Amino acid sequence: MKDEDYMKIALELAHATSAQTSPNPPVGSVVVKDGVIVGMGAHLEAGEAHAEVHALQMAGDKAIGATIYVTLEPCAHHGRTPPCAELIIDKGIKRAVIAVTDPNEKVAGQGINMLREANVQVDLGVLEKDAEELNAVFFHYTKTKTPFVTVKSAISLDGKTATVTGESKWITGEEARLDVHHYRRTHDAILVGINTVLTDNPSLTARIPNSGGNPVRIILDTNLRTPLDANVVTDNEAPTWIFVGKHVEETKMEPFFKKPQVDVIQLEDEEIRINNVLEMLGEREITSLFVEGGAAINGSFLKNGQINQLLMYMAPKLIGGKLAPTSFTGEGIRQISDVLELEIKEVEMIGEDIKFRAETRKEEKDVYRNN
Amino acid sequence: MKDEDYMKIALELAHATSAQTSPNPPVGSVVVKDGVIVGMGAHLEAGEAHAEVHALQMAGDKAIGATIYVTLEPCAHHGRTPPCAELIIDKGIKRAVIAVTDPNEKVAGQGINMLREANVQVDLGVLEKDAEELNAVFFHYTKTKTPFVTVKSAISLDGKTATVTGESKWITGEEARLDVHHYRRTHDAILVGINTVLTDNPSLTARIPNSGGNPVRIILDTNLRTPLDANVVTDNEAPTWIFVGKHVEETKMEPFFKKPQVDVIQLEDEEIRINNVLEMLGEREITSLFVEGGAAINGSFLKNGQINQLLMYMAPKLIGGKLAPTSFTGEGIRQISDVLELEIKEVEMIGEDIKFRAETRKEEKDVYRNN
Repeated sequence: MKDEDYMKIALELAHATSAQTSPNPPVGSVVVKDGVIVGMGAHLEAGEAHAEVHALQMAGDKAIGATIYVTLEPCAHHGRTPPCAELIIDKGIKRAVIAVTDPNEKVAGQGINMLREANVQVDLGVLEKDAEELNAVFFHYTKTKTPFVTVKSAISLDGKTATVTGESKWITGEEARLDVHHYRRTHDAILVGINTVLTDNPSLTARIPNSGGNPVRIILDTNLRTPLDANVVTDNEAPTWIFVGKHVEETKMEPFFKKPQVDVIQLEDEEIRINNVLEMLGEREITSLFVEGGAAINGSFLKNGQINQLLMYMAPKLIGGKLAPTSFTGEGIRQISDVLELEIKEVEMIGEDIKFRAETRKEEKDVYRNN
Repeated sequence: MKDEDYMKIALELAHATSAQTSPNPPVGSVVVKDGVIVGMGAHLEAGEAHAEVHALQMAGDKAIGATIYVTLEPCAHHGRTPPCAELIIDKGIKRAVIAVTDPNEKVAGQGINMLREANVQVDLGVLEKDAEELNAVFFHYTKTKTPFVTVKSAISLDGKTATVTGESKWITGEEARLDVHHYRRTHDAILVGINTVLTDNPSLTARIPNSGGNPVRIILDTNLRTPLDANVVTDNEAPTWIFVGKHVEETKMEPFFKKPQVDVIQLEDEEIRINNVLEMLGEREITSLFVEGGAAINGSFLKNGQINQLLMYMAPKLIGGKLAPTSFTGEGIRQISDVLELEIKEVEMIGEDIKFRAETRKEEKDVYRNN
């Protein structure tokens, strides 16, 4: 087997746990001695052992003179766990193959330096692109201190989200709606506008059996119109954070503070600015955000250049109508040369609907590269 | 080889000529004797020999006792050519394998009856579904006497055809725009509204080298606002038919009649009704129509239930804007239960855009079946 083959296994280990490591990145590791895999590991949850620790533990004494494959540069700092670079050296590893460097200021090449100084041979960049893709959320969060934003929408073939009368249940099929729950689960938080709460009274949970914790529910609600008996306030299924403008009075917020898991976050402006919300979410260690609209909120994320990924479910239906609502409204972009360019990463049929996933292209420039 | 294998070859022969036989259907035929292909043929152009004639000519005396494979029931009437069923019998064919019966009233089982009465063994329905798909246009036209309608549109990921300021050049990439020309070529006529003529002054030709004739250009122009110096009027590249309302005065139409290839067709109503236009096109032997919008015209075809196929090019861009135009406007459909249901038949990447082709589901019910 080649380096790429072992790294692929390490990436698979990381993928398997990618929904449960936040705010840490998913990491996988494989230890190989004389062509035999002697250790495998993945980082399971923040605060617990890193991937290398598990893999080296499994390898035991066989680690001496072996090669370790890691999807992300081993850490060099004493954080929640001791530095992995140190452990690799101590265990007698001869060669370390690393997919990508860690953009985290506390690591950023220092793990690699530490290994090289201890005469461990380091080979960097094996399946780097795959590792970057796996770590897109972590890299974005580390660099910007704001969450990686995925906007989801469901439209007809002609781009409508409802008929001219506003009827929208259901545009897409059962399979597509279930698929959305999978994405909810892999994000730290879900965001909707107050109108969605008032219209649909959703619970915004990931209805998947054995799915682990539900994401935090974020409501943008300038005037605090969320009803005290809304599902997101009463059901206790996940934390709910309601963002409100600065004019909302203390007495109006008080009853919400008594609810377990509910928080009302007051902004310093009258209006809710997307960029402020994202900064505050970043401070609260929300690394990934799943935006489920509506259209005005989607339009606001678009106008602010805050979309990293788009998830679109398209039903094979034609609705028509000049006044039928679409998925991204608001002011809109005026010139074709200014529109947000994306790249289609996946197209597939989900039941009778088409699903596609696209990433913004300018994000490419944002991806951290220091090698 | 099995019957299916030979029929597949016959279907391939028919596919190869499918853009050039209108108003006749494409047909392919293979003659097989003792496991050896002794004749192959396809119908090339209306007025010329049918597929069976070519295949039997190639087979010569080897046709005696052989099996003939035909994608469509052989004709039984004296039309532009003598009946093929008669020829098959005269040539001494022992067995005829037919994919699908001909919905044309003049044939409709009579070809098969004629063969059976002459003791030719007839096996019907081999690769029937493929043959029906190949003949979708012909079957629709034969049954409804109106053209099979394909609506084409190009949109952004959020279903917009232009920005809020109306800028639309270009949403999709070069590859997608070239792909459209292939579809233009395979249709008998292209239809646009007067606004498209006034805004873009298009020539609406199939810019493909060696592509044979251009489709007829249809302009819906209630008040005859088409300029006398418009490309479609002056370039002489293809016939141009301009549909106008009944109030347009003779003197206004006269200068157009002097142009070669240009015809002004006056309707009996003030307004242009899609169904009337389709009937008149059917009378003029337009079997397939490629509708290139704009949005109001698309909406009108939708509202009238006159869409058979949808061709959508989707650019990986987000435009946004409540007032940005969409691909199907007009009045629209009010209830989700009434929207036009389609089935996705193809999804593929064309350059950086997504192309998908969908067919209306109710069309399924329309497909002629008499076996």
